[in-house]
Amino acid sequence: MQLLDGKTTAAALKQEIAQEVQQMKEAGMKIPHLAAILVGNDGASETYVNSKERDCHEVGMQSTVLRFPDSITEAELLQKVTEINQNKDIDGLIVQMPLPKHINEQRIIEAIDPRKDVDGFHPLNVGRMVTGLPTYVSATPDGIMEILSRYNIETAGKHCVIIGRSNIVGRPMANLLSQKSTPGDCTVTICHSRTKDIKSYCLQADIIIAALGKPEFLTGDMVREGAIVIDVGITRIPANNKSGFKLAGDVKFDEVAPKCSHITPVPGGVGPMTRVSLLKNTLKAAKNLVYS
Amino acid sequence: MQLLDGKTTAAALKQEIAQEVQQMKEAGMKIPHLAAILVGNDGASETYVNSKERDCHEVGMQSTVLRFPDSITEAELLQKVTEINQNKDIDGLIVQMPLPKHINEQRIIEAIDPRKDVDGFHPLNVGRMVTGLPTYVSATPDGIMEILSRYNIETAGKHCVIIGRSNIVGRPMANLLSQKSTPGDCTVTICHSRTKDIKSYCLQADIIIAALGKPEFLTGDMVREGAIVIDVGITRIPANNKSGFKLAGDVKFDEVAPKCSHITPVPGGVGPMTRVSLLKNTLKAAKNLVYS
Repeated sequence: MQLLDGKTTAAALKQEIAQEVQQMKEAGMKIPHLAAILVGNDGASETYVNSKERDCHEVGMQSTVLRFPDSITEAELLQKVTEINQNKDIDGLIVQMPLPKHINEQRIIEAIDPRKDVDGFHPLNVGRMVTGLPTYVSATPDGIMEILSRYNIETAGKHCVIIGRSNIVGRPMANLLSQKSTPGDCTVTICHSRTKDIKSYCLQADIIIAALGKPEFLTGDMVREGAIVIDVGITRIPANNKSGFKLAGDVKFDEVAPKCSHITPVPGGVGPMTRVSLLKNTLKAAKNLVYS
Repeated sequence: MQLLDGKTTAAALKQEIAQEVQQMKEAGMKIPHLAAILVGNDGASETYVNSKERDCHEVGMQSTVLRFPDSITEAELLQKVTEINQNKDIDGLIVQMPLPKHINEQRIIEAIDPRKDVDGFHPLNVGRMVTGLPTYVSATPDGIMEILSRYNIETAGKHCVIIGRSNIVGRPMANLLSQKSTPGDCTVTICHSRTKDIKSYCLQADIIIAALGKPEFLTGDMVREGAIVIDVGITRIPANNKSGFKLAGDVKFDEVAPKCSHITPVPGGVGPMTRVSLLKNTLKAAKNLVYS
């Protein structure tokens, strides 16, 4: 069994991005600039935005965080998005979700200039991904594709079972892995809450992507020998340790790992890859690699 | 075994659309107007555009065909698209494919105002479909969804195996049928040229959608008792009759039909539904039902 080490892989990728930014700087080019909009005082959102800002600085990119109170109206927020769309100094824009209930999140997402949509949530970028055009792939699917690629996992002709059909993980993974591409060319089955007997599908899988958000859902009896397992879940569960909790994936690691040829741990698997994908996309935006 | 009769179903749907157009007319509203661009003298393209025009007239819609010679440049064609985008009298625009080789088809598709893209090929509309937003679903997938719906086929929790991953049939069907919707909520497996042992997947399917374009590919031994089979293929093959050919689907009908609970014939199944979907989308465009 080989661990798919997201932490080390992400660090290597980050190093490559830092080098590329350094080269841009030396060539006298503008360095990539990511703007993040943060509304309100949600603790988790604060943490996410701070770590994104820190990541930018670590690779030499510029970052700007625009903070607004919970009381901002949708119209005002749309106006801010428009201003950033027009600001030539900013290459990428993310709006940290969730937004206050009086703001329509979808409307905000669609207001972002697709060329700056480094989260890859704009339907235009989703459509480009689905039809195989250059695009910004959103962070988690991009991180998974990257780790499969860096570990040279053979995917062509393999049966990949995806558990979860969310717009941010399951659905894009199904579309990406069924493309005529590398990684890709998988026969893909997409399972979800309405699937009968998920176990029977998992037992047929060469590759399982668990992205349903139920801690330790995938147990040893659901996986065949030699499978490749990608664990996208990350949930806090109670534990007998100092902090009183631990982070659990969607996979019961102790049972599943011994049967696998490759598996991502939680933490240290998909998570770190996800963070680097935002940097990758910001670099792509700065270099006009998607919309040229 | 029940035939899913696309011809009769399409006729009923067309009748409903005609009534709606009539009501619009009586209410003093502008009647829906479809524009089609036809480049060159390809016989098949001529036939398609003519039948689309005839369909429009049959339901009381207005239609305009803009014909251009093969020699039109990409820039000129883009200019024509822009003019139609700006023409408030026109609700829907289709550009008949294929285009001459010196014209980038994708660039033309992306130039169409998504609000008028009644073929549903613009990546923005594809992305909206994939994420579950209101959109124009392209003709074949929309026709299949409509026939499943009109025959009250229960799809929730069913295993649907799709053979073919094209952007115009297989891929949208996988995205639509895996949505939390009716029809939908299927566990979906998408098979294609790189799939090993397609038969083993088909034998597990409650619903099979054959959309690979290989005449009579799906044989009796690949289908289990009680399956629902949707045949999207339509290919001319040689035959011992007056014309010297017949139309064959991707399904070996004589073998498969006796095992099915429901099956679409070829011709007279998916084909006629497909034609009506364009009218449905043009009506949606005229009523601003997608982008409001």
